[in-house]
Amino acid sequence: MYIEKVNAPADLKVLRVDELKTLSSEVRQLLLDKLSVHGGHVGPNLGMVEATVALHYVFQSPVDKIVYDVSHQSYAHKILTGRKAAFMNADEYDAVSGYSEPSESEHDFFVIGHTSTSVSLASGLAKARDLKGERGNVIAVIGDGSLSGGEAFEGLNVGAELDTNFIVIVNDNQMSIAENHGGLYRNLQLLRETDGQAPCNYFKAMGYDYLYVKDGNDVEQLIEAFRQVKDIDHPVVVHINTLKGKGYRLAEEQKERFHYSAPFDLVTGAPTVSFGSGEDYADLTADYLLQEMKKDPTLVGITAGTPTVFGFTAERREEAGRQFIDMGIAEEQAVAMASAIAAGGGKPVFGVYSTFIQRAYDQLSQDLCINRNPALILVFWGSLSSMNDVTHLCLFDIPLLCNIPNLVYLAPTCREEYMAMLEWGIRQTEHPVAIRVPANGVINRNIIPEKDYGKTLNRYEVSHRGSRVAVLGLGSFYQLGEAVVAKLKEEKGIDATLISPRYITGVDEVLLDDLKRDHTLVVTLEDGVLDGGFGEKIARHYGPSDMKVLNFGVKKEFIDRYDVNEQLKKNHLTAPQIVEDICRLL
Amino acid sequence: MYIEKVNAPADLKVLRVDELKTLSSEVRQLLLDKLSVHGGHVGPNLGMVEATVALHYVFQSPVDKIVYDVSHQSYAHKILTGRKAAFMNADEYDAVSGYSEPSESEHDFFVIGHTSTSVSLASGLAKARDLKGERGNVIAVIGDGSLSGGEAFEGLNVGAELDTNFIVIVNDNQMSIAENHGGLYRNLQLLRETDGQAPCNYFKAMGYDYLYVKDGNDVEQLIEAFRQVKDIDHPVVVHINTLKGKGYRLAEEQKERFHYSAPFDLVTGAPTVSFGSGEDYADLTADYLLQEMKKDPTLVGITAGTPTVFGFTAERREEAGRQFIDMGIAEEQAVAMASAIAAGGGKPVFGVYSTFIQRAYDQLSQDLCINRNPALILVFWGSLSSMNDVTHLCLFDIPLLCNIPNLVYLAPTCREEYMAMLEWGIRQTEHPVAIRVPANGVINRNIIPEKDYGKTLNRYEVSHRGSRVAVLGLGSFYQLGEAVVAKLKEEKGIDATLISPRYITGVDEVLLDDLKRDHTLVVTLEDGVLDGGFGEKIARHYGPSDMKVLNFGVKKEFIDRYDVNEQLKKNHLTAPQIVEDICRLL
Repeated sequence: MYIEKVNAPADLKVLRVDELKTLSSEVRQLLLDKLSVHGGHVGPNLGMVEATVALHYVFQSPVDKIVYDVSHQSYAHKILTGRKAAFMNADEYDAVSGYSEPSESEHDFFVIGHTSTSVSLASGLAKARDLKGERGNVIAVIGDGSLSGGEAFEGLNVGAELDTNFIVIVNDNQMSIAENHGGLYRNLQLLRETDGQAPCNYFKAMGYDYLYVKDGNDVEQLIEAFRQVKDIDHPVVVHINTLKGKGYRLAEEQKERFHYSAPFDLVTGAPTVSFGSGEDYADLTADYLLQEMKKDPTLVGITAGTPTVFGFTAERREEAGRQFIDMGIAEEQAVAMASAIAAGGGKPVFGVYSTFIQRAYDQLSQDLCINRNPALILVFWGSLSSMNDVTHLCLFDIPLLCNIPNLVYLAPTCREEYMAMLEWGIRQTEHPVAIRVPANGVINRNIIPEKDYGKTLNRYEVSHRGSRVAVLGLGSFYQLGEAVVAKLKEEKGIDATLISPRYITGVDEVLLDDLKRDHTLVVTLEDGVLDGGFGEKIARHYGPSDMKVLNFGVKKEFIDRYDVNEQLKKNHLTAPQIVEDICRLL
Repeated sequence: MYIEKVNAPADLKVLRVDELKTLSSEVRQLLLDKLSVHGGHVGPNLGMVEATVALHYVFQSPVDKIVYDVSHQSYAHKILTGRKAAFMNADEYDAVSGYSEPSESEHDFFVIGHTSTSVSLASGLAKARDLKGERGNVIAVIGDGSLSGGEAFEGLNVGAELDTNFIVIVNDNQMSIAENHGGLYRNLQLLRETDGQAPCNYFKAMGYDYLYVKDGNDVEQLIEAFRQVKDIDHPVVVHINTLKGKGYRLAEEQKERFHYSAPFDLVTGAPTVSFGSGEDYADLTADYLLQEMKKDPTLVGITAGTPTVFGFTAERREEAGRQFIDMGIAEEQAVAMASAIAAGGGKPVFGVYSTFIQRAYDQLSQDLCINRNPALILVFWGSLSSMNDVTHLCLFDIPLLCNIPNLVYLAPTCREEYMAMLEWGIRQTEHPVAIRVPANGVINRNIIPEKDYGKTLNRYEVSHRGSRVAVLGLGSFYQLGEAVVAKLKEEKGIDATLISPRYITGVDEVLLDDLKRDHTLVVTLEDGVLDGGFGEKIARHYGPSDMKVLNFGVKKEFIDRYDVNEQLKKNHLTAPQIVEDICRLL
């Protein structure tokens, strides 16, 4: 086992090429052992093993600086830079994050999790190196799928003008999370088909010198190419043709399935954990949209590289046909195009994770909301109980969206309400609409929801009218509100009012003022960061009055790999804590 | 005068080519007559006259849909689509906006003001057309300068795959606002030098058919090219080589000076209005940075296509040399690169307009603030008293920035404080820092400012300690706070407390709690939208207490070409109104 001797990049520099090949196999086996038990990004990492070995063989990290895009291809790098224990010992699996992490190693330079950033970040490291008169290579690694993001283009454009050592490794595995989309990918195909010889070359057009590696999983070819560009004095792209899932047949065959996987059986590939067999909002959404698409040929689903966020599996995408569009990873384009489809009389529905909608603020504001086009955006997973990596927090969509004029941002509390809002969002023609899809499971409240959320604009739903205390439970936190109200009744004999605000973007001033008659305290509950969010608007409204206000939500901070229950407690977001805080004020 | 007969595009279709040339001259003269008196975008519009005439001659607007990027090249379009009175009659100069505006004409499809959006928006119109089974050409017009923005790339990438009629006119005048920056521009140069024949072609690499027009100011050549692509069944780029400022010698020679101009003398080109001869923060900033750059070779100024926002005129850019970088219009890259330069030990300072910082939210959050790199961002013009076009409002930077963890967003109230914060922002190595540069003129308060804003983090400055009422005047509104406090004293005999919060991103809980001793009302004043902003955080803090809070700021709405004084009154932002509102609560 060579891997046992490799504790730092220096340790692999003494190996022969055939030994490096064996080392690659060992690294691959470590990846499979851990990922099948622990879950993680399978395909992208398997495809980058040889390239990572070759990079560390040729370059001198950390003097030479390698920046990995998205970090979904950085596990082999972690193994080779002193962190192999986190892949060899099950007890230590969680000792490293799934992303680049400078606090773990001097070989990592940034915390990275959103796509298309490596070229931009590397361009800054190159500039800093030159300003300081230092030496060393700066290397950005970027996948073909990440090239569709605007930031990657902006980085390439500026990087080309640096007129200095600047190396971009394009890891071309012919896939994004799902298949690639965009005209650029035809050029990558042409380059692969011509062994990089085609004169029409995206990277050369962007101002780069260019090198093609036919087999990006061959250590020898890679070493030769990297040696050629080491210490180069100008920007260069090394385009390496790799196989996503390399070395694990099932991942090679089922590339989308194994982009990321929960723990799975190595032999069958089947998941070894189950996530409950109940309904989920992704399936409910896709099924509803597919059914409506058949009635309305102008209804169109839009994704920015993550189609399954709203249930559009490969089969459903095929069923939708031209009524489904994948932008590749390009949220700006997704929002702008949705706005324009609506302007042109179509019915666009853009499904997106909470953590990624923030990639398109300017498009939401300018392309969509100033123009008041009736596009519909479905924001999934917005919750503390969602992704818990610091780069993928789903806590900021409320402040991001709710302060943009003209937008109607809705917070359904249950299945019936979500479906009614979805239907209204598609049919209405007056407002840009976003819906924060509940993130606390599919719950039936057995209510008859509104039909026209335009007519009731900014009017909150009073589920129960009591007195003294009013609890505003927003979206996913409505059920927490129910628990608080029940507990107040049971334990304190207080008959509190329970309200579902429904509209995150508006304040129901009439209702709030009416509450002043027989309430002394209003409590807001939101499943996201407090700063700039919903509750603060209620506090502002009551600022000049005698009404007391308690805002519950998540503190403004970047938290990483947190325990949900700990965070709920820390932020006083359990029913007992909330009741206690309320009683302290009465 | 042919122009007299042209009230709609149909009217120019009956003209002969030589008559179209005369018409172009007449349109150009109208532009010069109005712009020299009224101000506006000179160079970009003069360069697009012939192309606009040819577009309307060949295509059938509004069945064929033309989408103009940024709208800075859309004035001739306005003249030819029924809005010429707004260019011919001085009384009606303000009857049209400086941007595309659907409410003015069926020939405009979107309100557009930020760059790099036309291709994305047009892609949506094309998709809607196809879903509805309609006909007609969809045409995006985009300048070479706008191609550097990520959204334009994302739009091109997706547009190429539409497999349908989709025409992109690239108006290549070899300039952004200032000169172009980026590797892409070498390819555009190569294409111009080879009459579009070079095999390495950015647009072809992106999947487009391609046509080059050597003289983009020759109506005949343009008509021929547009006829060739009319009703085409696949995506095509028509690359037209135009002259920025065409037909007005001074604008042809001084392209940056005449990109936009305030009213000017047609003979000398000199501005005919003066903006006060006093100091401004742009000059102060650039002079200070240039002086510091000489001492510290790692200090580097960064712009995203608008260098003069912080005083970097062509002369100063030359003086700064490699210590100044222009990204082209690419705010995402600017923020990410600044973060990485700081990570690499350099001292980056990114100067940007309030309205444009919103183009990089994800980069601020992910690339910069999660990584806690000590980059400095200077946000200029954040104020109601700033740009008043709906697409360029400078009211949203506070909610955008102040809810991002780890960021320190500072609000200086005067020259001394700004300079001290600038110095600290550059020297410190702990925090990502942004400064909201005062937008109410250079005022000296004759104070001795703090030196270390890290040591006093989130501690507000108490300028005067009184009782009953405390006024928190944030940044540019500190002086309004002074006026309110003075008026309360004079007219009501109230000795109010005056506070400069300084930190937009933090709440000084100790001070706020201490105020409870002898105050019953806290008033916040901020020069921006209220929703999600500073004041709401103060209201949240006092929510559970007896303290009353009044938040003053701007209502959340998109307002267009407004009168500042009217808006100040409407939002109760004059000292007499504020005093009245305060007294009503005492």
